[in-house]
Amino acid sequence: MEQQRVRVGIVGPTGYAGMELVRLLAQHPYMDITYLAGSGAHTGPIGDALPHLRRLSKLPPVSAFSANACAESCDLAFVALPSGESGSIAVELAQRGVRAIDLSGDLRLPGDVYRTWYQREPVADDVLARAVYGLPELNRADVSAASLVANPGCYATAAILALRPLVDWVKSKRVGPVVIDAKSGATGAGRAAKQNLQLGELANDFYPYRVGAHQHTPEIEQGLDGVFQILLTTQLLPIPRGIFVSAYVSLDPDLAADIHARYASFYESAPFVDVLPPGHVPHIKSVAGTNDCQVSVAWNERTGILQVFSAIDNLGKGAAGQALQNANLMCGFDETTGLTETSLWT
Amino acid sequence: MEQQRVRVGIVGPTGYAGMELVRLLAQHPYMDITYLAGSGAHTGPIGDALPHLRRLSKLPPVSAFSANACAESCDLAFVALPSGESGSIAVELAQRGVRAIDLSGDLRLPGDVYRTWYQREPVADDVLARAVYGLPELNRADVSAASLVANPGCYATAAILALRPLVDWVKSKRVGPVVIDAKSGATGAGRAAKQNLQLGELANDFYPYRVGAHQHTPEIEQGLDGVFQILLTTQLLPIPRGIFVSAYVSLDPDLAADIHARYASFYESAPFVDVLPPGHVPHIKSVAGTNDCQVSVAWNERTGILQVFSAIDNLGKGAAGQALQNANLMCGFDETTGLTETSLWT
Amino acid sequence: MEQQRVRVGIVGPTGYAGMELVRLLAQHPYMDITYLAGSGAHTGPIGDALPHLRRLSKLPPVSAFSANACAESCDLAFVALPSGESGSIAVELAQRGVRAIDLSGDLRLPGDVYRTWYQREPVADDVLARAVYGLPELNRADVSAASLVANPGCYATAAILALRPLVDWVKSKRVGPVVIDAKSGATGAGRAAKQNLQLGELANDFYPYRVGAHQHTPEIEQGLDGVFQILLTTQLLPIPRGIFVSAYVSLDPDLAADIHARYASFYESAPFVDVLPPGHVPHIKSVAGTNDCQVSVAWNERTGILQVFSAIDNLGKGAAGQALQNANLMCGFDETTGLTETSLWT
Amino acid sequence: MEQQRVRVGIVGPTGYAGMELVRLLAQHPYMDITYLAGSGAHTGPIGDALPHLRRLSKLPPVSAFSANACAESCDLAFVALPSGESGSIAVELAQRGVRAIDLSGDLRLPGDVYRTWYQREPVADDVLARAVYGLPELNRADVSAASLVANPGCYATAAILALRPLVDWVKSKRVGPVVIDAKSGATGAGRAAKQNLQLGELANDFYPYRVGAHQHTPEIEQGLDGVFQILLTTQLLPIPRGIFVSAYVSLDPDLAADIHARYASFYESAPFVDVLPPGHVPHIKSVAGTNDCQVSVAWNERTGILQVFSAIDNLGKGAAGQALQNANLMCGFDETTGLTETSLWT
Repeated sequence: MEQQRVRVGIVGPTGYAGMELVRLLAQHPYMDITYLAGSGAHTGPIGDALPHLRRLSKLPPVSAFSANACAESCDLAFVALPSGESGSIAVELAQRGVRAIDLSGDLRLPGDVYRTWYQREPVADDVLARAVYGLPELNRADVSAASLVANPGCYATAAILALRPLVDWVKSKRVGPVVIDAKSGATGAGRAAKQNLQLGELANDFYPYRVGAHQHTPEIEQGLDGVFQILLTTQLLPIPRGIFVSAYVSLDPDLAADIHARYASFYESAPFVDVLPPGHVPHIKSVAGTNDCQVSVAWNERTGILQVFSAIDNLGKGAAGQALQNANLMCGFDETTGLTETSLWT
Repeated sequence: MEQQRVRVGIVGPTGYAGMELVRLLAQHPYMDITYLAGSGAHTGPIGDALPHLRRLSKLPPVSAFSANACAESCDLAFVALPSGESGSIAVELAQRGVRAIDLSGDLRLPGDVYRTWYQREPVADDVLARAVYGLPELNRADVSAASLVANPGCYATAAILALRPLVDWVKSKRVGPVVIDAKSGATGAGRAAKQNLQLGELANDFYPYRVGAHQHTPEIEQGLDGVFQILLTTQLLPIPRGIFVSAYVSLDPDLAADIHARYASFYESAPFVDVLPPGHVPHIKSVAGTNDCQVSVAWNERTGILQVFSAIDNLGKGAAGQALQNANLMCGFDETTGLTETSLWT
Repeated sequence: MEQQRVRVGIVGPTGYAGMELVRLLAQHPYMDITYLAGSGAHTGPIGDALPHLRRLSKLPPVSAFSANACAESCDLAFVALPSGESGSIAVELAQRGVRAIDLSGDLRLPGDVYRTWYQREPVADDVLARAVYGLPELNRADVSAASLVANPGCYATAAILALRPLVDWVKSKRVGPVVIDAKSGATGAGRAAKQNLQLGELANDFYPYRVGAHQHTPEIEQGLDGVFQILLTTQLLPIPRGIFVSAYVSLDPDLAADIHARYASFYESAPFVDVLPPGHVPHIKSVAGTNDCQVSVAWNERTGILQVFSAIDNLGKGAAGQALQNANLMCGFDETTGLTETSLWT
Repeated sequence: MEQQRVRVGIVGPTGYAGMELVRLLAQHPYMDITYLAGSGAHTGPIGDALPHLRRLSKLPPVSAFSANACAESCDLAFVALPSGESGSIAVELAQRGVRAIDLSGDLRLPGDVYRTWYQREPVADDVLARAVYGLPELNRADVSAASLVANPGCYATAAILALRPLVDWVKSKRVGPVVIDAKSGATGAGRAAKQNLQLGELANDFYPYRVGAHQHTPEIEQGLDGVFQILLTTQLLPIPRGIFVSAYVSLDPDLAADIHARYASFYESAPFVDVLPPGHVPHIKSVAGTNDCQVSVAWNERTGILQVFSAIDNLGKGAAGQALQNANLMCGFDETTGLTETSLWT
């Protein structure tokens, strides 16, 4: 039986997440890009704004966004605009019957938490209630049934996947706050020109930003069912892509004994999470350009701390790749469809 | 009718060209990797040496090379060893009936020219005579019929594709020597550890090497039918991948008038060569990870010089990608099979 | 006898050339920074805008520029603003009796040439006539006597120093156009945020820009006394600092015979130009952070072309370093004063 | 009164720490480099091995090391060889009356601890007892009186300076283990060619190494008087220079209240430690090429954790710069002599 084709739209195709969606969807066996729209700053062939995409034929031109036009031409839409704009567009599309995936932070948190951490007004509570948090490794069934998905944040994805296996095991035991020392490549900050992201500024440097105030903090705690209080430190790497999380959890030695086997078992049926053999560590380059997440665990007996490392591509599993994984589930496709590339390594 | 499957081997899978071949062939719809072998330094699962490939299942373990074993298990083999070792192995495999593609410089030049530029003894002349130079944009038919292919050099590919359209047009007119100012990423120098290629040495630097003596010089002149004498300057870029060629040709203004149209027409049926619209220039990032070659031409009226720019991925169209393009032709497949990826851009 | 101290001002201290001037002048034994002023966008302590300078004590705060204030507090001023703004400020300061060095392109070219290449109105001809082109290796005496100096362009400095020794020797012989294939780090494009200069865009890339139209073209021809017609190609390197020039000159073999000795002799008394021994090539890293220019020559007998390579730091000998060298001469100091740092290499 | 000049030798001048020592000492007002010696692999002018140093005149040629020759020509020697070789040479020189500074790990730890973490035999206990640990911010007086100094490790320096102010304050209170998440540029791993440090491997990547087993762990605990048990995680940054430490300490809220003022006060008289104002964070680029250490503290009230960030140049305050600071003290010079450079920033 032939797979039914799905017409998809991308709102915000010239940002980093958007262009990655175009790249992925242009190769998808069952999806057709039928709509590309942005703020109106770039209109016309996408290859004019993004030279690496100019040879993708049969793409619609980029137009200024219109909910009507989008609803008419798409079965499913990805909305990859800045937080504050993106969520309400996704909601509107969902209300018109288009399955919608919002890549911003707008639909991920309860309204009051959003207000505190984003310092902006949230969308209405009843609308938020419809949005499913799209981390398939935690809630594959919910995503499959969803018509409106809040795609997780990049740091949140890497951190939740690193720590989620622990949730059930430590639930009954008191553990102190978990330190999450996270590092991200420059594309995590978006594509708009900013002085501190110029190559002349960022090359050869490394430093933390939004210390103690990064908005993915409550998203991670929520993704861990509130079992852990976390301290998220976000730092800028002088590279284009990739997130690396080093997490530190004080753990009961008894639990630590078979921790690798527990992790491996937890992710056994997760095609994108690769629990590395003991002695191996994640590499950003191993996951760049893919939807994979590498995870490793190391028990430090001296200090009683479990080190958990995870690496993802912030534009892959941290944004566009995960959005496509969610879309695959929402459409009834195998979740790996169109997402099986191997990284280039070098 | 179903495509007949081809069993392929890779000799030298842990070098840069070799690992790129593994990556590409693992996704090929009609080819199966049935043999992986090297010098014996690494044996066992390829994922042990190359962590980004560890999730590719169904790959044979890496063994120490044996011509017998290779001939038994493969219909076609890629030999990606250093020059001086690679060619004779490819020849031996061809003699045993395995279609062979040699990625080294051993089979590209007449013996005396090879001796001069490589300062090493060539393989026998009758053997060299059997090897077809594998640049499909010039000699697709010969490649399709070949059983032994000499895969072109990375600089040579970028330079020949940049200049080849001019060959017929200038043939009857005297032009001075052509300056080819070429730049390459670090992987062009191979994967063996060398002090000058350490990140601590090469990062933030740029410099020429083998000035006036690069062995791709005669290969380029040969690929241009001896019409141009060239001066090739090779320079090291502090990035992993990519070759950029800036070529300068004194040209008759009459010929220059419609030079863009001539280039576009010349490459009309070459699926991997993208002649950019006037005003656009190639970017290394547009071709990284692909088998594409971007070309642009700009006529400088003040000086009467045509500037031709080209960009390829030295591991793609400059090595593994082109080798697969050749293999596709040798097997009767469409030449783009398994080679349609878009670059990541960032 | 004690050296008389000079009070200096920097107009534009938060741009790349300006901040390099602050760094150099803060260590100068006979100069005191007494005035820092910009457009008014940043005012207050310079360490607020430039954290690496925060420990330099005794610097005046940055104020909004006022010609009066500058004239009162300075004997000499560096004006490092964008072309179009910078030159007329330098002229005004000179008219008020402040020795002025303009780091922009405004005062380097005859008015009509400036109009053509900068597409902007030049300052008045009589004013231009007062400005001395500040390339001490060519006209040390003129600079020493000057009160208004046009500091050369970065590409122009690297190219003129590479080719100037040839001027007298080839004067009587016809040579074809000279190809100058030039590459620059990202700081050459200034510090204002631009999308194409973001690390996420430029890292791992390389490409030409302003093909056939770079405004340093006439400056180079002028600096070579019109003996050579040149084709300048400017290309962007994914590194912060440095310019590398590869120049190609068809040369009479007789002249080529002793070309290295001729170059070495030409620059014998130029403390910042290092003519490398035969077989050596310039490295951008060898000159980064310094006022040095490395030059090497290689005669390619096959093609009759002389290859000349040169490397400078675009912010050193290509901007701030050279400006200080000029200032030293204007003040009667040894030209190397405060400019003897060795590069970091790594 | 004129300063008495000191004759200094560098053993291992072609490694990264050694070349940095040459750069610094060549500019020192009271020290003269009178001896350069290595393993014998490179002999002759240092500019042959290190092109950026070729213009430093009056340097002695590099010879094969001889304790006799060194003792005859030097008052003070820096020994910058690999651990296992370096310490015993420094000891021998000290026994011959040459003040010696060992940059390796050989003389920093008690013999039994060294044996465990370096998996190598230590030098004799009585000899170790003579070596003073050279972190002047902790023990300036001891260093000033020393004739044999163990120069601290790079990670250890950054970590100890980050945490040392806490030692007295928390001494009486139980605190849990301190997490030290540390990142280093590639030169920290030395200059010998290794495949994983090639630019083609390390560029665009990030990953931990020696997880739970880095030999600077006990050195840090010792430098903190055993008050803290630490978990040190070392990770590789794809840049040449710099160390960044993010340290996490559970702290009593009362102590946290005035933590910034306490830090500022603690380092008031330390010329190289810059405690940044609240809201600022260290940047690797701010300290690259200098002997500075930037430190910032941030109290995270939600979790009760103090975040301490510090940045140094691993070749500056982490190796050669600190060695010179120690040498200055040993010779009775101001500790900042020859160490007042500002970073280049870009």
